[in-house]
Amino acid sequence: MTRRLFDLCGRDRNLRFSPYCWRAKMALAHKGLEFETVPTPFLGVAAIEPDVVRTVPVLDDHGIRVRDSFDIAVHLEHAYPDRAPLFAAADGIAAARFMESATFATLHPPIMRMIVKDIHDQLDDADQEYFRESRESRLGLPLEEAQQDVGLVSPELDKALAPLRRTLEFHPWLAGDEPGFVDYIPFGTLMWLAVIHGGLPIDPDDAVADWFGRCLDLHNGLARGARFAA
Amino acid sequence: MTRRLFDLCGRDRNLRFSPYCWRAKMALAHKGLEFETVPTPFLGVAAIEPDVVRTVPVLDDHGIRVRDSFDIAVHLEHAYPDRAPLFAAADGIAAARFMESATFATLHPPIMRMIVKDIHDQLDDADQEYFRESRESRLGLPLEEAQQDVGLVSPELDKALAPLRRTLEFHPWLAGDEPGFVDYIPFGTLMWLAVIHGGLPIDPDDAVADWFGRCLDLHNGLARGARFAA
Repeated sequence: MTRRLFDLCGRDRNLRFSPYCWRAKMALAHKGLEFETVPTPFLGVAAIEPDVVRTVPVLDDHGIRVRDSFDIAVHLEHAYPDRAPLFAAADGIAAARFMESATFATLHPPIMRMIVKDIHDQLDDADQEYFRESRESRLGLPLEEAQQDVGLVSPELDKALAPLRRTLEFHPWLAGDEPGFVDYIPFGTLMWLAVIHGGLPIDPDDAVADWFGRCLDLHNGLARGARFAA
Repeated sequence: MTRRLFDLCGRDRNLRFSPYCWRAKMALAHKGLEFETVPTPFLGVAAIEPDVVRTVPVLDDHGIRVRDSFDIAVHLEHAYPDRAPLFAAADGIAAARFMESATFATLHPPIMRMIVKDIHDQLDDADQEYFRESRESRLGLPLEEAQQDVGLVSPELDKALAPLRRTLEFHPWLAGDEPGFVDYIPFGTLMWLAVIHGGLPIDPDDAVADWFGRCLDLHNGLARGARFAA
């Protein structure tokens, strides 16, 4: 096997929670490409390619190294043009970039407040130290204060999901009739929450919950088979 | 001329500020279609098609009535398939729906707080009464309290523009290499602000300001030629 994805992991090496790694895994599966994941703690990232790579995912595609989930998706689209498309023609890349930016701006902040301390608790000792220092510096708060009760943050998350919910009133997938990378972007972000929280704190009658369940089923249940925190 | 767009107007019938009407006008111009606008105050909307139409824009395309800016764009795409495409293939409609929903969720609230009283002041007497009653009921505040200083709301607007700004780092237009309806959606919303405020309160060095200026130039400067409040 010569296609490897470096995939962020917790102390339990089977706990894979990175939103960006989930986007990349779904993109690989969408293209029908076999790959193995390399469980990688935060402090293992520097070892992948010293002085170059600072974040996962990193894809090693038969010797071609690609980092950043978006760049990985674009690479796969160009390298495997005969497989199912990830983007709607050329213009679809701009639409996916907007989805990536909007997801980061609106979904990541409430989710971070739901799980930042719980992420910490899932890491190995060395990663815990690194994670606490870097995140507390970024957030300006101890992790114990930065994380809030999920029920308290839920209304904000529900509100941030409104554009997805609205789009799903008109289309079965965010990409239209078939799933695409614009689905995997917010799906990856919600997997981050679901894996760490042990489930998705969203009303099961919400159209977003239905779509999330259908994403879990995609590609032979790739994501449904993931380890979720107890 | 048998193609008419009912276009929201102020007391000055040349002041056209509706974000949705701007989206429709840009879509018509994008298709290279001639049209005349019918200046329509809020209270004139009911007269267009009693008991049916409650909002503008309404397009009368040779007798075919279409309301809602998004439905107008889809109608134009289907009715004039040989003209420049508004959407990137079929999947582009889902992407545009997400842009519409995200724009409504993130840009409309801060802009409303910047201009809601100023909109009122631009309406004729009958519209002022209708507008005050309906908006104060929706906002739960007198218009005078709902509107805040533009400088106070600017940081929130700047933050809400982050996904557009980020997308424009990678593509000249939100639709990719050429403008499309996903550009006209937030452009229409910013025209709403610019027409009422008399300009766009955004740093001219901001990539969003540059893109906005290029939108103003599109289609022979259709929007640049608009009346802006003094």
